[in-house]
Amino acid sequence: MTELLGDPATVRRTSILDHLDRRTPGHSLPGVLYTDPEVFASEIELLWRRRWLFVGTVAEVPEPGDYLTFDVAGSSVLVIRDDDEQVRAFHNVCRHRGSRLVTAGQGSVGNLVCGYHSWTYATDGSLRYAPQLSPSIDTTCLGLRPVALREVGGLLYCSLADSPDDDLDAVAAQVRDYLTPHRLDRAKVAAQVDLVEEGNWKLVMENNRECYHCEGGHPELTCTFFPTWGLREDQVPERLRGDHDRYLLAEADLARRCDELGIPHRLLEDLVGRPLGFRIQREPLDGAGESFSPDGSRLVGRLLGDLADPRLGRCTFHTQPNAWIHLLADHVVTFSVTPISPDRTLVRSTWLVSADAVEGVDYDVESLTAVWRATNAQDAVFVRNTQLGVADPAYVPGPYNEAERQVDDFVRWYEAQIRSEARIPSPRGGSDG
Amino acid sequence: MTELLGDPATVRRTSILDHLDRRTPGHSLPGVLYTDPEVFASEIELLWRRRWLFVGTVAEVPEPGDYLTFDVAGSSVLVIRDDDEQVRAFHNVCRHRGSRLVTAGQGSVGNLVCGYHSWTYATDGSLRYAPQLSPSIDTTCLGLRPVALREVGGLLYCSLADSPDDDLDAVAAQVRDYLTPHRLDRAKVAAQVDLVEEGNWKLVMENNRECYHCEGGHPELTCTFFPTWGLREDQVPERLRGDHDRYLLAEADLARRCDELGIPHRLLEDLVGRPLGFRIQREPLDGAGESFSPDGSRLVGRLLGDLADPRLGRCTFHTQPNAWIHLLADHVVTFSVTPISPDRTLVRSTWLVSADAVEGVDYDVESLTAVWRATNAQDAVFVRNTQLGVADPAYVPGPYNEAERQVDDFVRWYEAQIRSEARIPSPRGGSDG
Amino acid sequence: MTELLGDPATVRRTSILDHLDRRTPGHSLPGVLYTDPEVFASEIELLWRRRWLFVGTVAEVPEPGDYLTFDVAGSSVLVIRDDDEQVRAFHNVCRHRGSRLVTAGQGSVGNLVCGYHSWTYATDGSLRYAPQLSPSIDTTCLGLRPVALREVGGLLYCSLADSPDDDLDAVAAQVRDYLTPHRLDRAKVAAQVDLVEEGNWKLVMENNRECYHCEGGHPELTCTFFPTWGLREDQVPERLRGDHDRYLLAEADLARRCDELGIPHRLLEDLVGRPLGFRIQREPLDGAGESFSPDGSRLVGRLLGDLADPRLGRCTFHTQPNAWIHLLADHVVTFSVTPISPDRTLVRSTWLVSADAVEGVDYDVESLTAVWRATNAQDAVFVRNTQLGVADPAYVPGPYNEAERQVDDFVRWYEAQIRSEARIPSPRGGSDG
Repeated sequence: MTELLGDPATVRRTSILDHLDRRTPGHSLPGVLYTDPEVFASEIELLWRRRWLFVGTVAEVPEPGDYLTFDVAGSSVLVIRDDDEQVRAFHNVCRHRGSRLVTAGQGSVGNLVCGYHSWTYATDGSLRYAPQLSPSIDTTCLGLRPVALREVGGLLYCSLADSPDDDLDAVAAQVRDYLTPHRLDRAKVAAQVDLVEEGNWKLVMENNRECYHCEGGHPELTCTFFPTWGLREDQVPERLRGDHDRYLLAEADLARRCDELGIPHRLLEDLVGRPLGFRIQREPLDGAGESFSPDGSRLVGRLLGDLADPRLGRCTFHTQPNAWIHLLADHVVTFSVTPISPDRTLVRSTWLVSADAVEGVDYDVESLTAVWRATNAQDAVFVRNTQLGVADPAYVPGPYNEAERQVDDFVRWYEAQIRSEARIPSPRGGSDG
Repeated sequence: MTELLGDPATVRRTSILDHLDRRTPGHSLPGVLYTDPEVFASEIELLWRRRWLFVGTVAEVPEPGDYLTFDVAGSSVLVIRDDDEQVRAFHNVCRHRGSRLVTAGQGSVGNLVCGYHSWTYATDGSLRYAPQLSPSIDTTCLGLRPVALREVGGLLYCSLADSPDDDLDAVAAQVRDYLTPHRLDRAKVAAQVDLVEEGNWKLVMENNRECYHCEGGHPELTCTFFPTWGLREDQVPERLRGDHDRYLLAEADLARRCDELGIPHRLLEDLVGRPLGFRIQREPLDGAGESFSPDGSRLVGRLLGDLADPRLGRCTFHTQPNAWIHLLADHVVTFSVTPISPDRTLVRSTWLVSADAVEGVDYDVESLTAVWRATNAQDAVFVRNTQLGVADPAYVPGPYNEAERQVDDFVRWYEAQIRSEARIPSPRGGSDG
Repeated sequence: MTELLGDPATVRRTSILDHLDRRTPGHSLPGVLYTDPEVFASEIELLWRRRWLFVGTVAEVPEPGDYLTFDVAGSSVLVIRDDDEQVRAFHNVCRHRGSRLVTAGQGSVGNLVCGYHSWTYATDGSLRYAPQLSPSIDTTCLGLRPVALREVGGLLYCSLADSPDDDLDAVAAQVRDYLTPHRLDRAKVAAQVDLVEEGNWKLVMENNRECYHCEGGHPELTCTFFPTWGLREDQVPERLRGDHDRYLLAEADLARRCDELGIPHRLLEDLVGRPLGFRIQREPLDGAGESFSPDGSRLVGRLLGDLADPRLGRCTFHTQPNAWIHLLADHVVTFSVTPISPDRTLVRSTWLVSADAVEGVDYDVESLTAVWRATNAQDAVFVRNTQLGVADPAYVPGPYNEAERQVDDFVRWYEAQIRSEARIPSPRGGSDG
């Protein structure tokens, strides 16, 4: 069968390229790309097992032995701070008979002890002890298998590729100064919420790339999130002119404050042309301009790091394929996206505050998380209804509006990455053994 | 791959024909036809996307802006009465990024506004408004995509084919006079119940095509449904002779009444030889002869339309692949069948009464629906147990009894339709874009 | 398609052999063998539809008309004691339109009446009556289809093969004398529990084949189950030396008692080289040495059969692919394993006591079942975590410890059976018609 048809992965790659050939530029993607299990398998192979993925922050593993897990496409990555304070990542699989090593999403350990037969690994991944093991077995070859991990201003990215590309390092050099003032290394987790959306991961990302739906769809968010986000000057509709004028004033004020503090704020964007499509910018918030609250005033009394000015708007860092992060003066909220199946996607939201902030005194979890819990729930409905529609045989891709430019950018990035990887017969390989 | 093996749909068609070649005439179908996902996909392509499907009644969309939705095989059909009182059908998919347009099963609107980005369509399907849309986009090409719809005496049928056959019109000409006295255009919905049965859609239809199982299986129904239904005179067993004699008397009485009122009642049947296999007949009910109640007396004080005689038995209209409808003097109950997966099928039951009947005065929903709720629940058990059995590798198709003649008719219709469509490389196409 | 690629079953067989070729001796199996639906389908075809499967005991069908059902791979087997006291097995499928005949897991009947159309079979499987059946139909050909069944000392095994191998008879001759003293023909069911474990059936069997995980994993069981089970003398670790010395004393005492009573106790084992891999041995229990209780004392006041000495340890009979059974003086507990899907497996546990024992007087169900309910629940966690891990692309098969010799035996038996059957184009056939 191999001679005539090629292996299944090759057939799949041909198939996803065929589908991309039928895409109309400037229009939403053909439905099959959101629904087909073979397309999904190709995406896992070509994107998710090869690109840098945002997995969490250093604030989630502050002490030696603290760990978190990140599950994607059947892989479970164990991110742990070792006894020398270095954050490392391993495949969460025992080297004996393959049991998951840790089963909680996060926790803290002295050593990593497998619950099945008590094989015991040090926090640096080496096999420290295995009961009754035959002396003929070389334990030095039985350490946990490492996963590539990088830190960027407190954000943790991993790659499941054996030889990951170095694009993350290039991006990190550009964005680090935007992130470091928020001192994620001195932050702590205030709340974390997992939401499974009933739609393809690309619909989740596309939904996040435009605010064309914000005005009607996100009443809580648009208290502080200017609804003309993504629009060019000449696209702002008359009825939003007042909002936009307020935005321009706020933007000028924010630029002045940032320049005084030496904090970068201008847009850096390379969404289409590189493996780690990204965008970063510091933008003003409406109202008091401090945080995601109904009136824009701060939600946490104690600001992050050494920040003194609460009015720093939101620095938003977006990376493709799987993250967007808002960094404010009083808190940070990160979002990671992971595909579960063609029509199910996990969105993990994590709110971080200063490690010194005291719950009940400096902040209230309910208030801190209210806007994005509501916004996520609204987006989940949009994504579910769109998934149902694009799966309908009657669906025909429609034209993107100019307000959806970044959706188009995402889709073009997606197409370029798939085309590029599908033609390379996996020189960098996946992490499969 | 195409050259050697043909496209997947062609391979599937070959496969379903192979299975049909192994069928023994006069016996139940081979198990694979009830269980295989590829067979199911062929049926969707060849039958469900090409035949006329019963979707509901005009009574469900009485006023302009009233709509219902009918979902089958990933398609959602939106049936709406437009501002000019015409009932139309559209694909329930926004032309922008594909979101489902309406998400409720029924409702009433002024315009059809997509919840995602507020694209707004008139009730005739034309795109009326889209926020911030680039002037370069031609909105006249962005109306909702139409679905073929026909009305037959108040019953609504749609076809997902681009160019549907005209068999429904031919059948309509024959049956319309049976239906119109019940005046569905002056009826209203008293109750609607969706039941998901855990079996293949053909088992649901086959179960409905015989009353061989009624005597033991449906105690509530056989209060008024004569248990010798489907039997020839010489097949009536001795112990049912009394029931059958009562049937013959009731039948003669019903014929006389109908003839006096000019209402047709004789059997019309063409179950095997045409795309829309059908059967219609007016038959007496046992007991008081008026309705599906324990003693046969009417369940609704106000009769339908201008009917004055409550003793009109049941006019039963059956259409293949997906409906049976009982029209009585006091109410109508419709059943639509839609496949969900090889082993799951939706049965929707809708009870209709005169628009002038008052709930709590003229009728009681609990009593009105009691017999068929019980009967449906019993049938769901039969269908589930049969699905489990035909999926067993040990299942061998067994012989149909003469009392199962209409089951055999259905099966022969099914085979003929599949054979006919599988050999035609889709000249009429599906509705896929 | 057939000419070029062979039929799907042949392709599947080639595929499972390819996977086995990649196995490293002495290591756990490649992950694909635990997760792939095609591998699973091959196992059903080559093992589960061809080997002898433990289905229950004569104690579960004590009287004529008593039946139990055993479901595996879409097949349902009806085991019934007929009116002549003979235990028989049939496919649980009506010969008419294929409905499941009995839907309860166990019960008692006079005749077997199908709930759908009242076709009625005698307990010997012959069709006794079918309402209104056409005289042209030969009912002698419409009896229930038989399934091969054998009894071994009260244990019931069936095979779905048309012409099963005779290995069960050969094993039966060797083990019958170990089993008969427990008189399952004079026992009754005290409790039965079904547990669905979230892992492949092989992980369930492998987990049962070693006590390497007992020390940390099964505190209730190791009260009486010596934790050095499966270890060679020179493998016993120092800290378990005391336990092991106690074991040696208990073993000598048990051997003496058995020899006096003429009950066989020595190990018989042929786990790798035959279709019905098996192992039987009588071993001492810790503590009082009588039963699976916290202190080892008996759990049932009335002993089984004519046994007078409660201190007979546990006679453990293991058969591959699907059973292990502990026979004690006061009770028997049987375990059957049946695959549901690649990652779900049913484990049925049945506790049997003397038919004369009185619940609440001679025994208490809660205490009787406590140890194995706890142990099964612990094993279900081990199996689930291992399934997750072996499904991870990062999983690499690890080395078996010497304490896992029987796991290696099981894996080698599995490989040998698959290789042997995959190369024979099904001369013995499955039971499919």
